[in-house]
Amino acid sequence: MAAKATMADIARQLGISRAAVSYALNGQPGVAADTRERVLELAVELGWHPSANARALMGSDIQVIGLALSRPTATFAVDSFFFEFLAGVESVLVERGWSLLLRVIGDAPDVEIETYRRWWGEGRIDGVILVDERHHDARLAAVEEIGLPAVLCGGPRKGIDLPCVWTDQAGDAALLVDHLADLGHRRIAHVSGPREFVHERGRQRGVRTAAARRGMSVVSVEGNYAPEDARAAVRRFLSEAEPPTAFIFSNDHMSVAGLKMLRELGRSVPDEFSVVGWDDSPLTQAVDPELTALYRNNQAYGRQAAETLLDLVSGKQPGLVPVARSQLRERASSGPAR
Amino acid sequence: MAAKATMADIARQLGISRAAVSYALNGQPGVAADTRERVLELAVELGWHPSANARALMGSDIQVIGLALSRPTATFAVDSFFFEFLAGVESVLVERGWSLLLRVIGDAPDVEIETYRRWWGEGRIDGVILVDERHHDARLAAVEEIGLPAVLCGGPRKGIDLPCVWTDQAGDAALLVDHLADLGHRRIAHVSGPREFVHERGRQRGVRTAAARRGMSVVSVEGNYAPEDARAAVRRFLSEAEPPTAFIFSNDHMSVAGLKMLRELGRSVPDEFSVVGWDDSPLTQAVDPELTALYRNNQAYGRQAAETLLDLVSGKQPGLVPVARSQLRERASSGPAR
Repeated sequence: MAAKATMADIARQLGISRAAVSYALNGQPGVAADTRERVLELAVELGWHPSANARALMGSDIQVIGLALSRPTATFAVDSFFFEFLAGVESVLVERGWSLLLRVIGDAPDVEIETYRRWWGEGRIDGVILVDERHHDARLAAVEEIGLPAVLCGGPRKGIDLPCVWTDQAGDAALLVDHLADLGHRRIAHVSGPREFVHERGRQRGVRTAAARRGMSVVSVEGNYAPEDARAAVRRFLSEAEPPTAFIFSNDHMSVAGLKMLRELGRSVPDEFSVVGWDDSPLTQAVDPELTALYRNNQAYGRQAAETLLDLVSGKQPGLVPVARSQLRERASSGPAR
Repeated sequence: MAAKATMADIARQLGISRAAVSYALNGQPGVAADTRERVLELAVELGWHPSANARALMGSDIQVIGLALSRPTATFAVDSFFFEFLAGVESVLVERGWSLLLRVIGDAPDVEIETYRRWWGEGRIDGVILVDERHHDARLAAVEEIGLPAVLCGGPRKGIDLPCVWTDQAGDAALLVDHLADLGHRRIAHVSGPREFVHERGRQRGVRTAAARRGMSVVSVEGNYAPEDARAAVRRFLSEAEPPTAFIFSNDHMSVAGLKMLRELGRSVPDEFSVVGWDDSPLTQAVDPELTALYRNNQAYGRQAAETLLDLVSGKQPGLVPVARSQLRERASSGPAR
């Protein structure tokens, strides 16, 4: 069998640089469209194909990052946070010609770890982004043991030295709580997401700490990010002897559902009750009144996670990377306490 | 130089599926021994040789399907259709333990084709799902030439025998148009998405055909699925001598923005104008009045696409797979014409 054509062969025949050939073949920018076309045509003609084995021997990258999600697919479909995050990740990969290996697993963290082990062992990925950090998260020790480059969206954790893309949950909570305190609210309700997630624990601690500092009382309940959880929480808190005057919901779907539930019960927002939410999204601006919400730049967060992993893979030591500060977007759903 | 023989050539000459050829050449199960023998003999005769050793090195157990998107990442982040579709794809893969290799490319279909070539050549995928079918779509011939198992979300096209997961755009258009006709509307406006997409052409044809059948007039304008396109379209159509009395928008973001624009201009919905939209989503129910919208089960669509590809990869011939019929969800944004 004839020897396979190399990038050097293609470069020689077309009288261009090897770098230009590499860019063209790897779908990267930095080469004119007509040159790319000529390279691709000749590559097909010569039967050129990169071999994963050859690439490994040359020390070049696989150029794939892995992302496995241990969560039910039902929550996956309606989670605007995750898709914005994913769009941010992809916006970095598109610039470098990398791909994303994605697996949605259902609620099974052990399968997630097994997936990493397999992907890494089979040379399918260069590294992984870990999302949805859980309490006592077994993935942190596992990636270390496997030797798999990994970036944690969350942390930092004592004794774990993965690079972390870190969100200041306490600071975010204070933005929401201080806004309500400034409006004169003394009793607030917090409808959180599942507390097995470290970020939800951080938010809950943050809400309690900020409320205590401002002399406010907090009632709280755990939800699952679904509209019905918000509706149930509103009904429950309104039946109390001294109901809260303001509600904090942990995602956009719950904020919208809580607002609508209050209206259905004939309660006025913001005259009687204020509603504020974590995570701004198109949804929070579609309702009337529009929702006061905490804007987190989730695309930028995804970008940071991808860039941090690419830095790590290229031999840097990124350490702790704080995400940009969240911003409170004040809209019509929050007003002075009665 | 003579063109290299492809798997498609071998399949055609032997009258068997490309998947069967792929199995035979890659030493995978799923093909009878005598068929494998005939494939290997013909492959030698035609001078076919494997594109990379990668496939063999990785073992027969790739279990990855590919999805590349040639579209700007900005539209990616806000496209609820795509994420519901993706959730449906993942819900099939999770059951089988497969993964998805995802690449968002920007608006560059040639890079999309090169991506497939590379993924396939390097043994990273078993097949691809093609979405966002375009007018004169070069990918259809390309996947055939590469010998890559592929399922088209769209079609069917003459002369292309890829399995197609097919949506009845004309039937969908008639559901919306007939609803408005029944309410007495005679002049309607259609704000479409980019007409380079085959499904948008199908919708446009469908709206015109259904309107003509009901004796209605249609004005239309091309948008890019963005809120500002809807706002501009509303302003433009309202300035006409005889404005339309009903608006059809091609996605949820445009429907919501069009509704809000009408309200900002002091126009009443549905008393003065009716607004209906393609693609129901949480957004269309967050606004007041809630939007009449066409519900398409996008998760089921994604499931069908993934199942069709897995069928193809396992040696079946899925042919044309129609998606479930869409349903009109009548809500408060459409009413009798004045």
